[in-house]
Amino acid sequence: PSQSRRQEVPVLPPDVDRKTFNKAWSDLKRLLGNENVDLNDKPLIDGWYMEHPNTHDAFHILEQEELVSCGTAYPGSTEDVQKIVKWANRYLIPIYPISMGRNLGYGGAAPRLRGSLLVDLGKRMNKVLNIDGHNASCLVEPGVSYFALYEEVQKSGLPLWIDTPDLGGGSVVGNALDRGVGYTPYGDHFANHCGMEIVLPNGEVLRTGMGSLPGPDGTDNPCWQAFQHNYGPSIDGMFTQSNFGIVTKMGMWLMPETGHQSFMVTFPRDDDFEQIIEIIRPLALNRVIGNVPQIRNVIQELAVTGKPRSAFYDKKTPMPREVIRECAKKMPFGDVAWFFYGTVYGDDEARTKSLKIIKDSFAKIPGMQFKLPQDLPPDHYLQDRVDVCSGKPVLRELDWLNWVPNAAHLFFSPIVPTKGKDARLVHELVTSLHKKWGFDSFPTWCVLGRELHYIANIVYDRADADEKRRAMGLMREMIGKAADEGYGEYRTHLIFQDQVSATYGWNNQALNKFNETIKDAIDPNSIMAPGRNGIWGQRYKNRGFEM
Amino acid sequence: PSQSRRQEVPVLPPDVDRKTFNKAWSDLKRLLGNENVDLNDKPLIDGWYMEHPNTHDAFHILEQEELVSCGTAYPGSTEDVQKIVKWANRYLIPIYPISMGRNLGYGGAAPRLRGSLLVDLGKRMNKVLNIDGHNASCLVEPGVSYFALYEEVQKSGLPLWIDTPDLGGGSVVGNALDRGVGYTPYGDHFANHCGMEIVLPNGEVLRTGMGSLPGPDGTDNPCWQAFQHNYGPSIDGMFTQSNFGIVTKMGMWLMPETGHQSFMVTFPRDDDFEQIIEIIRPLALNRVIGNVPQIRNVIQELAVTGKPRSAFYDKKTPMPREVIRECAKKMPFGDVAWFFYGTVYGDDEARTKSLKIIKDSFAKIPGMQFKLPQDLPPDHYLQDRVDVCSGKPVLRELDWLNWVPNAAHLFFSPIVPTKGKDARLVHELVTSLHKKWGFDSFPTWCVLGRELHYIANIVYDRADADEKRRAMGLMREMIGKAADEGYGEYRTHLIFQDQVSATYGWNNQALNKFNETIKDAIDPNSIMAPGRNGIWGQRYKNRGFEM
Ligand SMILES: Cc1cc2nc3c(=O)[nH]c(=O)nc-3n(C[C@H](O)[C@H](O)[C@H](O)COP(=O)(O)OP(=O)(O)OC[C@H]3O[C@@H](n4cnc5c(N)ncnc54)[C@H](O)[C@@H]3O)c2cc1C
Ligand SMILES: Cc1cc2nc3c(=O)[nH]c(=O)nc-3n(C[C@H](O)[C@H](O)[C@H](O)COP(=O)(O)OP(=O)(O)OC[C@H]3O[C@@H](n4cnc5c(N)ncnc54)[C@H](O)[C@@H]3O)c2cc1C
Repeated sequence: PSQSRRQEVPVLPPDVDRKTFNKAWSDLKRLLGNENVDLNDKPLIDGWYMEHPNTHDAFHILEQEELVSCGTAYPGSTEDVQKIVKWANRYLIPIYPISMGRNLGYGGAAPRLRGSLLVDLGKRMNKVLNIDGHNASCLVEPGVSYFALYEEVQKSGLPLWIDTPDLGGGSVVGNALDRGVGYTPYGDHFANHCGMEIVLPNGEVLRTGMGSLPGPDGTDNPCWQAFQHNYGPSIDGMFTQSNFGIVTKMGMWLMPETGHQSFMVTFPRDDDFEQIIEIIRPLALNRVIGNVPQIRNVIQELAVTGKPRSAFYDKKTPMPREVIRECAKKMPFGDVAWFFYGTVYGDDEARTKSLKIIKDSFAKIPGMQFKLPQDLPPDHYLQDRVDVCSGKPVLRELDWLNWVPNAAHLFFSPIVPTKGKDARLVHELVTSLHKKWGFDSFPTWCVLGRELHYIANIVYDRADADEKRRAMGLMREMIGKAADEGYGEYRTHLIFQDQVSATYGWNNQALNKFNETIKDAIDPNSIMAPGRNGIWGQRYKNRGFEM
Repeated sequence: PSQSRRQEVPVLPPDVDRKTFNKAWSDLKRLLGNENVDLNDKPLIDGWYMEHPNTHDAFHILEQEELVSCGTAYPGSTEDVQKIVKWANRYLIPIYPISMGRNLGYGGAAPRLRGSLLVDLGKRMNKVLNIDGHNASCLVEPGVSYFALYEEVQKSGLPLWIDTPDLGGGSVVGNALDRGVGYTPYGDHFANHCGMEIVLPNGEVLRTGMGSLPGPDGTDNPCWQAFQHNYGPSIDGMFTQSNFGIVTKMGMWLMPETGHQSFMVTFPRDDDFEQIIEIIRPLALNRVIGNVPQIRNVIQELAVTGKPRSAFYDKKTPMPREVIRECAKKMPFGDVAWFFYGTVYGDDEARTKSLKIIKDSFAKIPGMQFKLPQDLPPDHYLQDRVDVCSGKPVLRELDWLNWVPNAAHLFFSPIVPTKGKDARLVHELVTSLHKKWGFDSFPTWCVLGRELHYIANIVYDRADADEKRRAMGLMREMIGKAADEGYGEYRTHLIFQDQVSATYGWNNQALNKFNETIKDAIDPNSIMAPGRNGIWGQRYKNRGFEM
């Protein structure tokens, strides 16, 4: 939906009056060029995935006009970013960096603090700076999407894979900084990054890892993408899920290409998941399953067909299990409850061996069925998993967006040990609360070895105020109840960041206090993404901006 | 050697007079109990590996009395550690935490700042707190050595491996904090840690990762050893190679046991190493070689026999290549130049396949010879690699300590991309400088995939002042010359930490300035290990303590 704005535009950040803002804005235009700044004073358009807005959260949960920026700056270089940061300190205007802003389900391109200046790094800083074919690594700018990196690697002709999340339109840098995941053996993106260049909140620029040692004659260090650390403390992790700096370059490791075979296993009973997880754990720990496999519920198979919910069920209430069952019966996989999507890697022989172990292990679950891509129709979701699990970006998951009118996603993503008992506890909590708040429950479990990211996808109609209110209530209650049992989110949408970070409060909020000590030391004016990940900085803290 | 002390004892830290110190000391005794503090006022005894001193650096390079503590405290709990830290802030007495103090070659148990109070965590805090057989992980206190953890895992009967460095007497925690390496697929210790408990310089205690979310009813979080991150910034890396806190608990992942086959490949020509490295790179990237293999020079094979240098050569000057050659001829492997020690993992079939690929790849180097443990005598070094590479701690490398009288080690450990050209550049620099300063050159290259840790082991007689002076000169010159070419150390001895950290000076020391901003914010009195890793804190900086 697009609405004309009800409030005076642009919305200004706290403590900044229009006169100061206008002066600051002219100054910013002078610094970057007129064409590289944009006031957020036009109607807000949610757009769609490929045409996502950088003015607000396309998947809004609050009012559309709530999480908005005052405008956007498009730096073209690290020096431009430094200029913007110094400008922000001069005028005390908060800024909010994004790489591409496709963080849909977690806040999109919206700033946490209303009226912040969005710094859209990706539009102009979008080069693959280097691909090292020998050492299987690359160095990229924030605007490089998975699609773009994939293209570039293809063009190079090198036998290398990238790793991509479910949707390939996001940025390699932004996703790694939010500690996102993909589905090849290199699925843990932060773990596979190597070296950063960062503009600090005071406008200084530093490099981490070996990049902090100058190369001969002013070149980049020859080991920058070979080794993740520098001498002394490893600070890269500080710049993930935080507001401590703006990353302007990042190294990523690429995977040498190898043979791969994706497969799907279905399981008939709702209760089977506990046993599925017990079976996966040793297979994952022993790397028989080489990637980040997913366990998905049957209802997701309906959604990912791209058909609207109304094609299956005409009431607004959560789809009853019986209805899902009847629909599933008409699908190629039949009346089943769970899907396991996995991939094995290596040469023919190795893959055959791994597949046999996996089949034999799952055979303990009566009624399980094992399928290869050739066993399924060409439009089945497994065909897209083949691509994703061999590093080829796709957009298939967008098909979910047809489920309800004006569909938006909101993710509840707790960390759960890969143990049946823990999984049951969280799963029952999630499903019963979905029922209570009137939502279909879409759990996807991404198995990263010793733990799984439980991703509950709340799909809601963003034109329906009551649905939004309920989505919000559901999230708040899930976060609270899960934390009572010891489970916490790995990542969350902007508006729940204060709540989630407070759950990580062992010993009287010791970790959060530490983070805020750091914040105030390196960003005394609190100009950098205030509130992001629950970290505010002294200028804004306890003034009612928390939510 | 042990000498009586020439200076007034205990040596006090800067700015602390004896009266204040004595008062502080009684207070410390009151806080911890008389039996848990020790004044450093007795003669200094270098001891040996198993009986290493915690009063000074057993492998001293400066005068033995230079890097000494004022005394040692033995906390028995996290609360004790908090008491000590608060005490340090009260009296402005710098403290220096060690886990076990076996950091030989990098400073042993010595504090960086003379007169600091050593906090020996390991003596009383030495429990394996938990082993999770399902999720293959453990939680340990600082005093748990590799030997102790190994024993505990054996006792549990669980099919799990630990990962150990070359010497098994060090601490799991201290080694990971200094980002040390071992030799199974879990060889990168920091990468395989999971969760910390940390006492900050202000005496507060926090937990990182999922441990920062309280478990139900005051238990530890059920995901603490399952997932490495918390919500919000990942700060664990900050506490490695730094002086930002005292780690009192650490989680480590354990490896599910598997089949393993160690092997050795020899290469005849000095010049072969460039090709060896080019061949290893793809094998390592494709995980055909599953562990952290080592390339070693033939002279090390002489040293690790445990025989003194004098058994091979009677002059003090570096052993000429010809002499090494003659000695090698009498050894089981004959007149060769380089040794590659590797291990493949998995079941019989997988190992056989990997071995074939490895043999075929190395076969490109004329004269290479492939050996299995059964091809070599029972006292050959390869037999110990079998243990280390399957997670069994050993002490074999101590045999080097017979090479020269009063032998001490000093490591020069630059990071080099796994590329022949880079390796040659560094290797030639190292060998020519060893020659210049009059030392045998002992290079070991630990291959961690995209880079190798080049470990040049300077072995010197610590009773010989001139040899110490030359070892020091050699180090200083290697650090400087390598940095000019873009190569830097991953870790270094206390007395070179200022020099090494300064080489990581891209953009006007931006990274070091950032680290010091953090230091001053979280440790305003600079009480925590001042100078460690080149980070001083405002109270000591630029007062002449740098070296
Ligand atoms: C249907 C669907 C499926 C999805 N599947 C996945 C999945 O499989 N895996 C997954 O990880 N995610 C998934 N997502 C979430 C999201 O779409 C992706 O993570 C996406 O890659 C994030 O967008 P981006 O890369 O454009 O990040 P951005 O929006 O650019 O960045 C995310 C945040 O990181 C910070 N940031 C970004 N760049 C910088 C910088 N340079 N400096 C400082 N801070 C910065 C900012 O706070 C920003 O808000 C999915 C979303 C949907 C709707
Ligand atoms: C012949 C030889 C072979 C070696 N081989 C290897 C090898 O293969 N791999 C390898 O990594 N090393 C090797 N070393 C170096 C060293 O012996 C080991 O790394 C050893 O494990 C370190 O000693 P430690 O564990 O007792 O650490 P400690 O001495 O306890 O710790 C090292 C440093 O870390 C910091 N620290 C320790 N504990 C804490 C804490 N709890 N809180 C805050 N800071 C802390 C302190 O600054 C301390 O000085 C070798 C040394 C020799 C002489």
